[in-house]
Amino acid sequence: MTIQQAIEEALADLTGVETACVAAGRTDAGVHARGQVVSFRTTSTIPPRGILHGVNHRLPEAIGLLAVEEASPDFHAQRDALGKRYRYRILNRDTPRPLDARTTWRVAAPLDLDLMSRAADHLIGIHDFTSFRNHGSVDGDRVRTVRRIGFTRDGERIDIDVEGDGFLYRMVRNITGTLVLVGRGALPPPRVREMLLAQDRRVAGPAAPARGLCLMEVFY
Amino acid sequence: MTIQQAIEEALADLTGVETACVAAGRTDAGVHARGQVVSFRTTSTIPPRGILHGVNHRLPEAIGLLAVEEASPDFHAQRDALGKRYRYRILNRDTPRPLDARTTWRVAAPLDLDLMSRAADHLIGIHDFTSFRNHGSVDGDRVRTVRRIGFTRDGERIDIDVEGDGFLYRMVRNITGTLVLVGRGALPPPRVREMLLAQDRRVAGPAAPARGLCLMEVFY
Repeated sequence: MTIQQAIEEALADLTGVETACVAAGRTDAGVHARGQVVSFRTTSTIPPRGILHGVNHRLPEAIGLLAVEEASPDFHAQRDALGKRYRYRILNRDTPRPLDARTTWRVAAPLDLDLMSRAADHLIGIHDFTSFRNHGSVDGDRVRTVRRIGFTRDGERIDIDVEGDGFLYRMVRNITGTLVLVGRGALPPPRVREMLLAQDRRVAGPAAPARGLCLMEVFY
Repeated sequence: MTIQQAIEEALADLTGVETACVAAGRTDAGVHARGQVVSFRTTSTIPPRGILHGVNHRLPEAIGLLAVEEASPDFHAQRDALGKRYRYRILNRDTPRPLDARTTWRVAAPLDLDLMSRAADHLIGIHDFTSFRNHGSVDGDRVRTVRRIGFTRDGERIDIDVEGDGFLYRMVRNITGTLVLVGRGALPPPRVREMLLAQDRRVAGPAAPARGLCLMEVFY
């Protein structure tokens, strides 16, 4: 069962009405979301606070609504999204930290954030991101705008925040996998620009694992 | 398979020698450990660093060695332990935070740390902790020394650090469950002293769930 199905079932059980949800962005298995936005229409008269607690009560621990509010009747979580921010979390150390294994990608080799940041600069702006896109969904136009790629290091933890108007399938994970190659010294930063211009998935780096990725925020 | 068995199997596979491990403290299913200490004897000549990486390579993501060092031949992780520090993590908010569900206990009712701290003061020192002990292992003498119970609040997160010379079965979880009753206003702080003196498990509060507990440090 998908997260969407779980929420729809909880809503139906609570309200007694079949309810279809729309999520702002899909997430692969293993990818997390702290800032997912979901819209739905209902004929139920249960107030938002009642839906919040009623649905949460019916969901397993791994899924939860953080807030529920009434929107204008034509609000559509996916179509109305103007942008998204994803965060990819890396644990940069040479021994495991089991309690973080589900939410981070552990990279043993020391990573040079300065090199990674220089490589990332080549990706900022409006580009065709075909080289960083996997098959798996119909993307149509491959041009996207990446507004920001920010790096934060806190001890062994490295967060890569990627913000843009929208993302192709696996795009953030493919960008991260490629930037990690740069950070390890396996790839000079300007190579990332060449990869981008090639518009060929085979030239860029491998996808970073799903578990480190989290949808943090959707902009409207 | 227990964590101990997983480590023993990995050691046997790496070194080619059957190896028995001793852990400083047992942890119930669902309880975590960041500072567990394990001792073992081996005839293997693999250096500590080789054991560290070789064993980690053979363990699932959920278990990991943080460090390996040579000890004196008579070192025994359990018998030589002089004390331990556990941390119990509470998430004090009225909606779920799924990514923390495995490692925290979510308490919806607002908790008053000042009341909890006053209640905890009654537990500091050398006491018979029968009222906070569950059946489940042979404890013998029920007298333990609790050196410190510290509270830290960071936004919605409350950490309760409990340090002592040793702990009876479920003692930290039973103490936490009782302190949460106090924090919600359901129990005045002096009641905890009466509970302690009663030396009767039935008078104290219920155990807090396993998932919020973590063995942080073992003192030698």
